[in-house]
Amino acid sequence: MSRIKIYGSAISGNCLKVKWTADLLGIAYDWIETDILKGETRTDEFLALSPAGQIPIVVLEDGRVLEQSCAIMLYLAEQVGSDLISSDPFEKAKMIGWLFWEQNFHESSIAVRRFRKRFAGLSDGDIDPTLLTRGNASLQLMEAHLEKHSFFGGDQLGLPDIALVAYTRMAGEGGYILDDYPNVGRWISRVENALGIPPYGEENV
Amino acid sequence: MSRIKIYGSAISGNCLKVKWTADLLGIAYDWIETDILKGETRTDEFLALSPAGQIPIVVLEDGRVLEQSCAIMLYLAEQVGSDLISSDPFEKAKMIGWLFWEQNFHESSIAVRRFRKRFAGLSDGDIDPTLLTRGNASLQLMEAHLEKHSFFGGDQLGLPDIALVAYTRMAGEGGYILDDYPNVGRWISRVENALGIPPYGEENV
Repeated sequence: MSRIKIYGSAISGNCLKVKWTADLLGIAYDWIETDILKGETRTDEFLALSPAGQIPIVVLEDGRVLEQSCAIMLYLAEQVGSDLISSDPFEKAKMIGWLFWEQNFHESSIAVRRFRKRFAGLSDGDIDPTLLTRGNASLQLMEAHLEKHSFFGGDQLGLPDIALVAYTRMAGEGGYILDDYPNVGRWISRVENALGIPPYGEENV
Repeated sequence: MSRIKIYGSAISGNCLKVKWTADLLGIAYDWIETDILKGETRTDEFLALSPAGQIPIVVLEDGRVLEQSCAIMLYLAEQVGSDLISSDPFEKAKMIGWLFWEQNFHESSIAVRRFRKRFAGLSDGDIDPTLLTRGNASLQLMEAHLEKHSFFGGDQLGLPDIALVAYTRMAGEGGYILDDYPNVGRWISRVENALGIPPYGEENV
C-alpha cells in the first residue's frame, strides 16, 4: 500500500501498536511525533484531522484519516492481505474479540493507571482503586491463557499479541508486579523477539 | 445462519447490542438470562464457557464460544452477508473505529459510572471523578458529530449506532444530563425507531 503518516507518541502503547504492525507488514510510513503532554492532540490543526483528539491516527496518501489503534491495525493487515487476519470467520472473530477485550478491559485499567502514576504524578491513594483490581484481573486472565497457549493470536504472533504487549510490558510503571505473572513475562519476551524490538526500557523509538 | 445461544442480561447495554443486532439481522437465538449481580458469570459452568467471566457471550450450534459484544456484532453481520459491513475497506475501518471508541472511551466511562451509581450503590463522592469528565466528553463528541450526520454508521443505521445507543440511552442513570445534548436525544429516538424498540424505561426485554 502507499506510504502513510502515523501521528503518534513514543510513550504511548496504543501508538506503538500501529508502528509495530506497520513495521511487521513492511508498510512505509512517516512517523509524526505528537506530544499529548504538550497538548499537541488538542490544537486546531490536529482536531481538524481527528475531532476525538486522540493518538494514534493514520493519514492515508489521499488525506483520509483513520482513528483507533486496533481498527488501524486491522485495516493495515487487511490492506496488505496478511495472514494475521484469518480467512476463517470464527477464528477472525476470536482474534477481534481479544482486541476489544484489550481496549475495554486491559488498556482501560493498566494503561490508565500507568498514565496517572507516571505522567499525571498521582499517588496511589488518589487513583481509583478498581484500576489496580481490574489490571491484575487482566494479567491473571493472560497468565492462565498462556498456561496453554504460546500466543493470543493462535500458535504464532498475531494482532492480539501486538495489541496486548504494548501496555503489558509497561505495567510495572502502573504499579503492577509483572514478576507475579511468569507466563506473561516469558510471552513478553517472545513477542519482543518476534517483533524485533529490545526489552522495554532499553529501546529508543 | 444456525440458531445461536446468547448469554446476556437485560440490564446490560453490551448484551442488548448483541440482541438488537441478531433481531435486526433475523438471526434466531435462545436468550439465556444471566444475572451478574447474583454471580452467574462467575460459576464454574460459565467460566468453562468463557474464562473472562463477562457477558454477553454467544454459543454457536457446534458449541464454540464467541466473546466481546462488538466482535460478536461484526461476526453476526458478516455471517449473514449484511450491508452493515461495507465492502469498502476504508469505510469498514471507520465503522470499526467507532466500535473501538465506544468500548474504550464511551462504555468505560458512561456504562461504568451508571453501574457504580445504580447497581453498586456508590455516591458521587465515591466515584472516580474522571468518569464524569470522560463520559461528558463522549457525549460532546457525539453531539458534534450529529450536527452534521444522522447516524454514526453513515447515512443510515449502522453497527456503531447500535453499539453507542446501548449505554447512551441509559446515561441518565449514570448522572449525565442527556437534555444538554439535543442532537444525541434526537438520534436516540431515530435509532430506537429503526430498531423497533420502545424508549428506554418503557421496555420489557
